[in-house]
Amino acid sequence: MSFWKNLFTPSLSTNGSGPAVANGSARRTLDGAGAAPPPPRIFLSNNRDIDLYELEELCDAVGWARRPIRKVKKAIQHSFLVVTMWREQGNYRRLIGFARATSDHTFNATVWDVVLHPDYQNKGLGKALMQRVIDDLRSQDISNITLFADPDVVGFYEHLGFNPDPDGIKGMFWYPDS
Amino acid sequence: MSFWKNLFTPSLSTNGSGPAVANGSARRTLDGAGAAPPPPRIFLSNNRDIDLYELEELCDAVGWARRPIRKVKKAIQHSFLVVTMWREQGNYRRLIGFARATSDHTFNATVWDVVLHPDYQNKGLGKALMQRVIDDLRSQDISNITLFADPDVVGFYEHLGFNPDPDGIKGMFWYPDS
Repeated sequence: MSFWKNLFTPSLSTNGSGPAVANGSARRTLDGAGAAPPPPRIFLSNNRDIDLYELEELCDAVGWARRPIRKVKKAIQHSFLVVTMWREQGNYRRLIGFARATSDHTFNATVWDVVLHPDYQNKGLGKALMQRVIDDLRSQDISNITLFADPDVVGFYEHLGFNPDPDGIKGMFWYPDS
Repeated sequence: MSFWKNLFTPSLSTNGSGPAVANGSARRTLDGAGAAPPPPRIFLSNNRDIDLYELEELCDAVGWARRPIRKVKKAIQHSFLVVTMWREQGNYRRLIGFARATSDHTFNATVWDVVLHPDYQNKGLGKALMQRVIDDLRSQDISNITLFADPDVVGFYEHLGFNPDPDGIKGMFWYPDS
């Protein structure tokens, strides 16, 4: 095991739930004398057939509270849009980003659960992920794209064209204890 | 026609799209010597089979910009929840309130298009409409009910238990021209 640990970054070696992790063909490539692994590529997808434990691992990495897997599954099923970001190298594929949106399919969409693995932050990938969300929603003729931003990411979304409290409109949340 | 105009309030007489408006049985009742019309009742419904022209008329009454009927139809179809409020008197039924919510069916719901006819405002009916929305969403185990409130109705929603910008979370809207 230490052989593999040395070959891969810690974040990759702990990825136990991605497709085709450490399979035979990868071993052959890495065993080749001096053969370099194929260059990594990062890509976006709308395929919502996601390993939910891998998604949980991603959300753990940014410190989100855990949510029941069955509820996450249902929420993804009933989202209008799901965008995932992957890092792929040879046969290794790792989920590094995620975002989804609810919508009435016409006027409004609301973006939820935007997450990018800390190892890949501050490289423009979060912007690429959100730009894909915006492009996908616009291509489906959604007029109004909304979200609720934590204070520390308001600037990030402003750079993407989101305005906080436009015309004094307030985002509001209902709480059972109110 | 002036006979009918005198018998009904202007708001009812201009309601041309509701079900069973001014039909024979109502005429008979009203023609009866001194027979009073049945008392009006106001009720809520989740039936989303709405006359979209009647809904447009309601939205016109509060000064909203018109939207294509086909898009309104699609938005209603793809809403998680629709609540309507009706005033019924005898065979006359009039749409006086409307609200809908998008949702991932699990974690989040966002309430859109809350409208109450001006003739029926300031009577507690808007509160009843929204309380029904909240109750319906809660009964379906939605954790997080959100909305975007115009400045003049922030206080209304606060009374219902909605908090603006909780923990500094900002509602944000994307605009194409940003």
